[in-house]
Amino acid sequence: MVSEPNSSVITKFWQCLMNLPNEFTIKVVNVMLQLKELGKEDPRRVIHSLKVAFAITLVSTFYYLKPLYDSFGSSAMWAVMTVVVVSEFSVGATLGKGLNRGLATFLAGVLGLGSYYMVHSISRGNTTIEPILLGIIIFLATAGATYIRFIPLMKARYDYGLLVFILTFCLVSVSSYRDHEIIDTAQDRVTTILVGGLISVLVNIFLCPVWAGGDLHNLASKNIEKLGNFLEGFGDEYFGTLEAGELNKSLMQGYKSVLNAKQVEDNLVNFARWEPCHGRFRFQYPWQQYQKIGNLSRQCAYRIDALNGFLNNFTKTPKEIKSKIQEPCIKMSMETGKALKQLSISIHKMAPPTSAETHIATSKIYATNLRSMIKTKLWEDTNLFEVVPVVTVASLLLDVVSSTEKLAESIQELSTLAKFKNKESKVAADDEKEIPQTCSDSRGPQHVIIIN
Amino acid sequence: MVSEPNSSVITKFWQCLMNLPNEFTIKVVNVMLQLKELGKEDPRRVIHSLKVAFAITLVSTFYYLKPLYDSFGSSAMWAVMTVVVVSEFSVGATLGKGLNRGLATFLAGVLGLGSYYMVHSISRGNTTIEPILLGIIIFLATAGATYIRFIPLMKARYDYGLLVFILTFCLVSVSSYRDHEIIDTAQDRVTTILVGGLISVLVNIFLCPVWAGGDLHNLASKNIEKLGNFLEGFGDEYFGTLEAGELNKSLMQGYKSVLNAKQVEDNLVNFARWEPCHGRFRFQYPWQQYQKIGNLSRQCAYRIDALNGFLNNFTKTPKEIKSKIQEPCIKMSMETGKALKQLSISIHKMAPPTSAETHIATSKIYATNLRSMIKTKLWEDTNLFEVVPVVTVASLLLDVVSSTEKLAESIQELSTLAKFKNKESKVAADDEKEIPQTCSDSRGPQHVIIIN
Repeated sequence: MVSEPNSSVITKFWQCLMNLPNEFTIKVVNVMLQLKELGKEDPRRVIHSLKVAFAITLVSTFYYLKPLYDSFGSSAMWAVMTVVVVSEFSVGATLGKGLNRGLATFLAGVLGLGSYYMVHSISRGNTTIEPILLGIIIFLATAGATYIRFIPLMKARYDYGLLVFILTFCLVSVSSYRDHEIIDTAQDRVTTILVGGLISVLVNIFLCPVWAGGDLHNLASKNIEKLGNFLEGFGDEYFGTLEAGELNKSLMQGYKSVLNAKQVEDNLVNFARWEPCHGRFRFQYPWQQYQKIGNLSRQCAYRIDALNGFLNNFTKTPKEIKSKIQEPCIKMSMETGKALKQLSISIHKMAPPTSAETHIATSKIYATNLRSMIKTKLWEDTNLFEVVPVVTVASLLLDVVSSTEKLAESIQELSTLAKFKNKESKVAADDEKEIPQTCSDSRGPQHVIIIN
Repeated sequence: MVSEPNSSVITKFWQCLMNLPNEFTIKVVNVMLQLKELGKEDPRRVIHSLKVAFAITLVSTFYYLKPLYDSFGSSAMWAVMTVVVVSEFSVGATLGKGLNRGLATFLAGVLGLGSYYMVHSISRGNTTIEPILLGIIIFLATAGATYIRFIPLMKARYDYGLLVFILTFCLVSVSSYRDHEIIDTAQDRVTTILVGGLISVLVNIFLCPVWAGGDLHNLASKNIEKLGNFLEGFGDEYFGTLEAGELNKSLMQGYKSVLNAKQVEDNLVNFARWEPCHGRFRFQYPWQQYQKIGNLSRQCAYRIDALNGFLNNFTKTPKEIKSKIQEPCIKMSMETGKALKQLSISIHKMAPPTSAETHIATSKIYATNLRSMIKTKLWEDTNLFEVVPVVTVASLLLDVVSSTEKLAESIQELSTLAKFKNKESKVAADDEKEIPQTCSDSRGPQHVIIIN
């Protein structure tokens, strides 16, 4: 009786042990699949890994080649370190980190040496006072620099520089206490860090560069397109005018990634500022305008999220009620969607957003029609409670139209600031136009006069 | 004539030069004010800076004290480096970075040495083949590790570890090529890194610790309170039932910070996972539940943002129309606000959210009333167009009520998972209750039967 539980524990343990290889295999397979997916999603990731490996292998030749090793010695370590730490995905991030590291190392080195010599001359070789004074200086400098890292602007752009400053300042001022050939050591280190940084930056820029600015530009365009996708599908989905399966629902739900894009956007803006002019982006390109566009896109996305709530609403409104304002709602949603997509294309092609204007104008005409229809006695015999959801949807759609207008204005501003040109890339799709008559509905504004 | 423009240029330059000290003074004063503000906002920032400075000064004694320097030598540098890099604001972040650094250094050191000995035995001392083989191994290892950093889970939790792995692996395997006392060097480095990490972690934990878990907990509570503040004020603000100046508008606008809180929340969850049990947070505390609560708070905040749009809407609805559903709307908004504030308090006090339930129940009763009122012929003689904004506001408020209910459920779930207890901290405010009669309005559901 006593041995039974024991043996069952052993059996269980044995089974667990036997299952381990299986579980391990499953996990490994999962990770491999995930890695494959990541590469498929953005092949630049694979290229980036190879680039980093290439830069590190290149810099490690400092150890292998005798003449290089003779001139740098074990300081070559700093070159390897710099390459590993500085190699980021985008050019902007790499340049930002490289410049931060370089400048901070130089500044901290000079200040560290300066403070060491100052302390040395004050203490006149007194081995008790010297470390105490050095300790006080280090305490004050590190406390100050750590505190400055909390300033939001510093955190966004110079955080790494301040970290390196603290590090180098401490290393230089404390090691100068023991290492009396400190000037040589410092010189070697600065040189190797410069060489490492240079290798890293050059590999990053000249081997398939990934520009943060370009990514930011594409993100802005892509996000606006996602909003457009939702609105193009929304009308038909809400009023049920299409057969199931005709709509690509996952395409419509793409807008959700826009809701939380702020952090990525802010990072990319910070990286893009470090980048030199490249491709279609000239010097002092108005990157901060993308933050404005991003904020307006998100405002639009919040309204869309509210609209999305009505798609899954179980308190269905009768079709005959919906049908009363179905036409202008569907058309308005569709036109706003098209306007957003045209805005997205105009950002993508860097052309002034002229073709979006017609869609916005059209959607505003539908909006006016919709407002007039709501003003009429259209609802006389209906139960207001049933009308509420439809009217809310209409009202949110009207809100989205005005958000889109603001968004178009800010893109127009970008177009002016960045001097977008209307060359051969003139955005097409003018043939898609379908402008309604103002108030095609006979019970339009004419009635308003009577009602008011 | 020629000298005039020249002299004006010189004058301008001179003026600029004269203004420089002024501008510099203004900038310095601005920065000082900002620093003061940062300290006032969160005094833990000042303490953190002093803590980091203390840890670094402590570790720099490795250089000053002869016996310590004799045993570590210049490897003491690694201790200083570790302290600088590992010292983060919260315990979780510091522990996470410290463990990442420690484990990655150990693993990379072992693998780096292993690969060096393997290559050395294969090449049999051939000085041409050896660096080539080492180069290939470094290339493959760094490319692989860099690519793995793209996996989202790895990026969130082990990014720093992978960076240190790449760094140490390269340093160990390349420097072993030149430095034949590599085992001693490696041992010294690992020891100093351990000592540095330990000092950093101990100072961080035992001197006024900042727990990421606590911050996450407070953030969740604070964010829900901000939503509550908006709703408590919204009814009176929208229906204009209070005198100007009686409402704290900046308090109401606090909800905006909730919209973009996702990144901060995700970071805090990742840090909190590293933390040992502390204070009221036991081992394996359900941190991930805070992400769920955060998502639901944001959903609520999106609706509130839509409501906020109606406060500044210039197409004012006549008061007599608003007044028809004014009472249930104000009460519902107020009760939902109170419910949210009670939920916030119950998170803050770690008590089950029982007192919020009554407010939710009350607001649901008002919601039922509101629905029935909308169903009646209340609007018969009004222009529907003027009714639309009010009805939209009502509908959004109803939406907020159901969001709040979901939020309450997820907080209930947290309360169960984290075993919140209803001790002396039983959330008060039961006296604030004011439960209405179901359908106090005489034209309530009774009429619905007639209408339907």
